[in-house]
Amino acid sequence: MKKNGPATESMRDDLEEETLAEAREHTTSYEPYLEASLGLRNHWYASFFGEELSEGEVRGEMICGERIVFKRLDNQVFALEDRCPHRGSAFSARPECYSKNTLTCWLHGFTFDVRSGKLVEVLTEPGSKLIGKLQQKTYPVQEINGVVFVFIGDMDPPPAIEQDIQPKFLQSNLVVQSVARNKSRANWRLAAENGYDAAHLYAHRNAGLFKQIDIPVPLSTFPSNKGKVTELNGDNGPWGIVKFDDINIWHAEVDGTYITAPNVDPHLEHDNWDIEVGLFMPCGLEVDYFPAPGVLHFEWYTPIDEDHHLYIIAHGAICDTPESEVIFRSRCKKELAPLVWRSEGDNNVPVGDGDTWGFNNFDDWGREQMHHVYQYENFWRRERLFRPDYIVLRWRNLVSQRLRGIQKWGTWAPTRGWSPDGKNYDPKFGPK
Amino acid sequence: MKKNGPATESMRDDLEEETLAEAREHTTSYEPYLEASLGLRNHWYASFFGEELSEGEVRGEMICGERIVFKRLDNQVFALEDRCPHRGSAFSARPECYSKNTLTCWLHGFTFDVRSGKLVEVLTEPGSKLIGKLQQKTYPVQEINGVVFVFIGDMDPPPAIEQDIQPKFLQSNLVVQSVARNKSRANWRLAAENGYDAAHLYAHRNAGLFKQIDIPVPLSTFPSNKGKVTELNGDNGPWGIVKFDDINIWHAEVDGTYITAPNVDPHLEHDNWDIEVGLFMPCGLEVDYFPAPGVLHFEWYTPIDEDHHLYIIAHGAICDTPESEVIFRSRCKKELAPLVWRSEGDNNVPVGDGDTWGFNNFDDWGREQMHHVYQYENFWRRERLFRPDYIVLRWRNLVSQRLRGIQKWGTWAPTRGWSPDGKNYDPKFGPK
Amino acid sequence: MKKNGPATESMRDDLEEETLAEAREHTTSYEPYLEASLGLRNHWYASFFGEELSEGEVRGEMICGERIVFKRLDNQVFALEDRCPHRGSAFSARPECYSKNTLTCWLHGFTFDVRSGKLVEVLTEPGSKLIGKLQQKTYPVQEINGVVFVFIGDMDPPPAIEQDIQPKFLQSNLVVQSVARNKSRANWRLAAENGYDAAHLYAHRNAGLFKQIDIPVPLSTFPSNKGKVTELNGDNGPWGIVKFDDINIWHAEVDGTYITAPNVDPHLEHDNWDIEVGLFMPCGLEVDYFPAPGVLHFEWYTPIDEDHHLYIIAHGAICDTPESEVIFRSRCKKELAPLVWRSEGDNNVPVGDGDTWGFNNFDDWGREQMHHVYQYENFWRRERLFRPDYIVLRWRNLVSQRLRGIQKWGTWAPTRGWSPDGKNYDPKFGPK
Repeated sequence: MKKNGPATESMRDDLEEETLAEAREHTTSYEPYLEASLGLRNHWYASFFGEELSEGEVRGEMICGERIVFKRLDNQVFALEDRCPHRGSAFSARPECYSKNTLTCWLHGFTFDVRSGKLVEVLTEPGSKLIGKLQQKTYPVQEINGVVFVFIGDMDPPPAIEQDIQPKFLQSNLVVQSVARNKSRANWRLAAENGYDAAHLYAHRNAGLFKQIDIPVPLSTFPSNKGKVTELNGDNGPWGIVKFDDINIWHAEVDGTYITAPNVDPHLEHDNWDIEVGLFMPCGLEVDYFPAPGVLHFEWYTPIDEDHHLYIIAHGAICDTPESEVIFRSRCKKELAPLVWRSEGDNNVPVGDGDTWGFNNFDDWGREQMHHVYQYENFWRRERLFRPDYIVLRWRNLVSQRLRGIQKWGTWAPTRGWSPDGKNYDPKFGPK
Repeated sequence: MKKNGPATESMRDDLEEETLAEAREHTTSYEPYLEASLGLRNHWYASFFGEELSEGEVRGEMICGERIVFKRLDNQVFALEDRCPHRGSAFSARPECYSKNTLTCWLHGFTFDVRSGKLVEVLTEPGSKLIGKLQQKTYPVQEINGVVFVFIGDMDPPPAIEQDIQPKFLQSNLVVQSVARNKSRANWRLAAENGYDAAHLYAHRNAGLFKQIDIPVPLSTFPSNKGKVTELNGDNGPWGIVKFDDINIWHAEVDGTYITAPNVDPHLEHDNWDIEVGLFMPCGLEVDYFPAPGVLHFEWYTPIDEDHHLYIIAHGAICDTPESEVIFRSRCKKELAPLVWRSEGDNNVPVGDGDTWGFNNFDDWGREQMHHVYQYENFWRRERLFRPDYIVLRWRNLVSQRLRGIQKWGTWAPTRGWSPDGKNYDPKFGPK
Repeated sequence: MKKNGPATESMRDDLEEETLAEAREHTTSYEPYLEASLGLRNHWYASFFGEELSEGEVRGEMICGERIVFKRLDNQVFALEDRCPHRGSAFSARPECYSKNTLTCWLHGFTFDVRSGKLVEVLTEPGSKLIGKLQQKTYPVQEINGVVFVFIGDMDPPPAIEQDIQPKFLQSNLVVQSVARNKSRANWRLAAENGYDAAHLYAHRNAGLFKQIDIPVPLSTFPSNKGKVTELNGDNGPWGIVKFDDINIWHAEVDGTYITAPNVDPHLEHDNWDIEVGLFMPCGLEVDYFPAPGVLHFEWYTPIDEDHHLYIIAHGAICDTPESEVIFRSRCKKELAPLVWRSEGDNNVPVGDGDTWGFNNFDDWGREQMHHVYQYENFWRRERLFRPDYIVLRWRNLVSQRLRGIQKWGTWAPTRGWSPDGKNYDPKFGPK
């Protein structure tokens, strides 16, 4: 965190007017984004951590409404459509593998090579004439720094994965430690916008994280002017925007009551936070640094369906030696991860009891709170944005201009209501 | 209960023919009522008991599909739309108040004066240009005899609340004691009609109430003729109808088996019940007297959405001295309330085990039983009414003629699927 | 099981080509079947076991989307529409009977003769003018060999029940023992097709049944050629098809790994299974023999609504003496029934743990797995059938040609969302 001069009033007014004006016109400026409730098509998506899939193991996921079954073989992950073409059963419901390269449907023994998707045998009618005729849809998969990415779309070959990943995630000598992977109840866009928006620090002001690390916390941070928001060129890397939150709001007042976040002395002038935060297409966040100096914080908001996303969190650091990697991973597990995420079992405390609630758990809760009004009460067109939301408008416009496609149920048979684990199955309305 | 002469056969025939004839034509005579599944617009609605909201407290409710947040300040209750105009969050999900007059959104600190609805500060961007531009919708609220009423509609000023409340609820020296407030699974109209219909006493015949108070109970009561049904003029009070149930059915016979309710001696002539019962727009019942002599019984069936209503029950009595009030309240709590309502925790007995099931719990169960056929199987147009339903037809016609408006999702962004307490949230289909 | 010569290759090719060709054209050849998601109209349906309804008892069921209340009197079962014509209440929610012949609505005492459906009294208004005017819909009912069948449709008189029951169920001296009756989450057509399809023996290969009876089990069985599939004439009996599964697949290979079911010695030539299996309209299966020699296995897949069916299982045997009946019934209960079905309470083991999972429980699970893709992801038109599915095509074509009608919500007011037991009531989407 560097100290930074305050924004001038003229900068501020300029930005504010622009935000309000853009917000007024937003129905014309980012219509494609508003249509992308199921995600962007022809992009790579973080799906799970590599450590969640051992050699030979099989798992099912739904990404952007598509059912996908993953298998690891020879330490490489392959993916197929998770509906047997014969009678539609999910391979992942009861995975069967008779060889390293194959996956067999539990119902009639249709057996596919997971590398090519080709039907290689039918155990209940060996030598079936369908062999050689049936080929299951395959998905390009890449595993980078312990995160498994899958390509959702129909470009062949797919674009380079580097164009869909946060740039700092691809740095040399980066060590990435998994933190959390949660099936969250909110549209992916609300999660992305909320993750990028540091003006809601206010809502986190009682987080245990801040108390523990004992630093002065502002009520809000956001860029002071356009120069603090940079659009990145997607030619060699992803499209995205990076912002510097150089405005720090340290206190506010309501009817004579002063409001501050913890550790703030209203009589002192605190150093501004000046965190660099980037949001990249299709749905990845990078924060430099968080939750501690020298630690990169990564998030992904991978669409499951319109009502859910995979909320994936990881921490990263440059480690030049095996020893430093060991130290970093250990610190992540013991110290950092519990600050940002606690699994449900640990979390039987009321919302807002900051000491015991993980920082990002609270985000997760907050996004769920927004979901219904946006998805089902037309709030995308009713919201009233304010100055810090300028970055949100920039993001929506960027996505609308640079997306490679919009995912629709029409591009894929509807799978709402299906859940990979077979639980909470609802024939009409999807996983709960 | 006064003794009353029996209805003559000619009166009876006359009324019966009329009921059947009206029922035959009902699709033309009360179409507006059939459209009002979400409630009537531009009316006052009982929402909760004042005792449920202490000074400074905040609570959320959904009334007629509108989300409303209430706050009490200086012993007066104010109400706002419970969606922050910025990003739609419900204030009530995590209420924050920095001053008596304000309510702050937990997400970005948008702070409103609950009296005016005006945005007075934004804690994450003090001095925001939105101040002075944003005004949250406010709702007129009045608290009368311990019940908080809210006005749903767009008349400004709203009509006098006296025109939407049962007349006897407004008597001088009336003391009102809360009995129950339950989120019930039935359309409000079914609840109102069932509450008004004493011909279903049959269904209550084994109620513990009747056994306990040890009086002869008829199988059914209803008005003998038109003269026993009076339509009230709404100029100075509410539109409503009052009936005198002077016909009392004491026994019936099926294939030689005689059916009577408890405490009935088939060899004696019992005094008729002659209870005065009124049903008032928008959805309030008054019974004079019930469940005991001298006790007024009030019910409200406030719409939540098409599938749920708030079932609010209170007892009242004229108390001229503080001492008599104390005695009345104590009697209500100990003796009367348990006869009519038992909370779920107390109620782990099978339906119809009258001794342990509250009188109105059974009504609640019965209305839920009717709901699906009416709301989703078109029973509004398939029902076959009988003579005692004459009062139901009168009610439907009265409402159709006198309603100030019909509430529609179109008049308010859809909020089905949202629940104020955040529980049982279903992105598609509302609170369960 | 008889020994049978293997199918010739030429037969095989012939059948395979035909299956593929028919599958390609199926949208034209069996459209009526694809429309019959709610069942076939004007057919008799197995509903429950007679032993589940004692003399004088009342129960509610939903069959093909119609709500029906059954009562047994003088050892004969009668059935009425389970919605009181007055206000729609379900009689079965709280059954009341004052005489042998009548059923009374618990809400206002509307009392019907269950034999004629006629309103005979109204307890809350004795002598109501509706008497003689109201007649509740009655359903033809027949009880055969301990199974209660109901006719869903509007043919009067209905066709002879013999035309809707598996022929061997009607044999002289047949003793039928109930095994299971389960509300299953899958469309009835998937259940029927799965029940008829023995090519999925593969999925059952670890069933406790096979281990216990210690016989060699093939991976799959299916008819070798058209001559092994016979369409039955429906003039004196039901329309249906009977197949002889004379092809037995004993082993298969994937990348050098041999797959066999239990008890199979790859070095021996096992006797083919040659089980005769018939599937009859509207939805009855008969297997000769299963799960043991001399035992007939019957199944019914009675539609509840589009998403559920009643899965009814019974075993039968010819017993010429009372003593042999006693022995058979005892053997069924102790030995045979537990092999095919375990109730939920007994079944807390993972799917596929064959030793503890009933044979047909696994079918039930498998059908639920297929349901979503077929019902909501258009798999009826996307499936890729293989040679053993030739029988499925025959069944679909037969049903499409011979059905007496297609059940639609339009032919009956919608009742989705209602459950006879009042549990899991969902105002929109039916029993879960």
